[in-house]
Amino acid sequence: MKHPFYIEKPIFFDPATGLAECEAPPLERRYSNMKNMYLDETARLRLEQTGNDVIYRFYELGVPEKESDLAYGTSIVYPGKVGNEYHMTNGHFHTILDTAEIYYCLAGYGMMMMENPEGDIQYKEMHPGEAVYVPGRYAHRSINLSNTETLITFYVFRGDAGHDYGSIKEKGFRKIVVEKEGRWTVEDNPRWQS
Amino acid sequence: MKHPFYIEKPIFFDPATGLAECEAPPLERRYSNMKNMYLDETARLRLEQTGNDVIYRFYELGVPEKESDLAYGTSIVYPGKVGNEYHMTNGHFHTILDTAEIYYCLAGYGMMMMENPEGDIQYKEMHPGEAVYVPGRYAHRSINLSNTETLITFYVFRGDAGHDYGSIKEKGFRKIVVEKEGRWTVEDNPRWQS
Repeated sequence: MKHPFYIEKPIFFDPATGLAECEAPPLERRYSNMKNMYLDETARLRLEQTGNDVIYRFYELGVPEKESDLAYGTSIVYPGKVGNEYHMTNGHFHTILDTAEIYYCLAGYGMMMMENPEGDIQYKEMHPGEAVYVPGRYAHRSINLSNTETLITFYVFRGDAGHDYGSIKEKGFRKIVVEKEGRWTVEDNPRWQS
Repeated sequence: MKHPFYIEKPIFFDPATGLAECEAPPLERRYSNMKNMYLDETARLRLEQTGNDVIYRFYELGVPEKESDLAYGTSIVYPGKVGNEYHMTNGHFHTILDTAEIYYCLAGYGMMMMENPEGDIQYKEMHPGEAVYVPGRYAHRSINLSNTETLITFYVFRGDAGHDYGSIKEKGFRKIVVEKEGRWTVEDNPRWQS
């Protein structure tokens, strides 16, 4: 029997780059893929028109979407800002809302921003070696707080958890993270209305 | 609301030692805890009587045993041999047999030994940066193949998966891993009868 590649042999995820040696290429999100996700849409558009670099990469290895299975891989958020807002992932709820996720930080300096439908907000800084537990029911987004280093995390979630971007694509998270006087600060997202 | 410690803040698992900075101390297994788990029981007993060192440590953080939750932590297998058999964990099936597990190797050099109830055997070497996928239905055991380095892995499995040591405590795995002429080799376990 031929096993899928993620069973056949261990997959090397380079802790320095986050990139994997495996059949599945990473998915990527560029400035052009994140329309209206940052507060400063003019700045985003300018970045799209002048290089349209990759903001982040992540893996989908094709593990069966079963409740007994586990999806895993790396998330790689490159340093940079759109206006004064740090590079970040789109973020998502799980389609099966109450499923948890574990992130283990391999490199860089960042934040896990989390919020649940009732409006409870949790945000945690991440440094290399730290495991962040994302409870069920919490939307979550990785944010790179460094202007020079790449944020790399290894993540695991239930195979059938699924991704629900719906409400976030419309109005984002309740909070945004911006740089002020050289350090991060969490502010209300003016585009967010309950 | 006071959150459990594994939600309150990220937990640092030192990639060099595997040890965590958190409320829960690691569990540990010494030579005295592994009676009849190695082929050479005389050698094991001698090691128990001359120091009774720790063979391995691992964490149980107390994440709820729910199907929507994820248990996680590090496994730390110290270098050494019992007779010519490498240091290893007891190994276990999951009580909910078909649940998978993910291991990410942080340091050292080792092997994941796996077998399912039908007798299919899979074993994979592990090096730092490699993720090993343990499919559902496979008992699994971490083995330290180095005589000098500690094997450290970060693991994640479903909160309600549970541990079933029963059949392994009686007769072990179908295969054992021993050192011959300075390198590892996989051999039939003479104590294992179907």
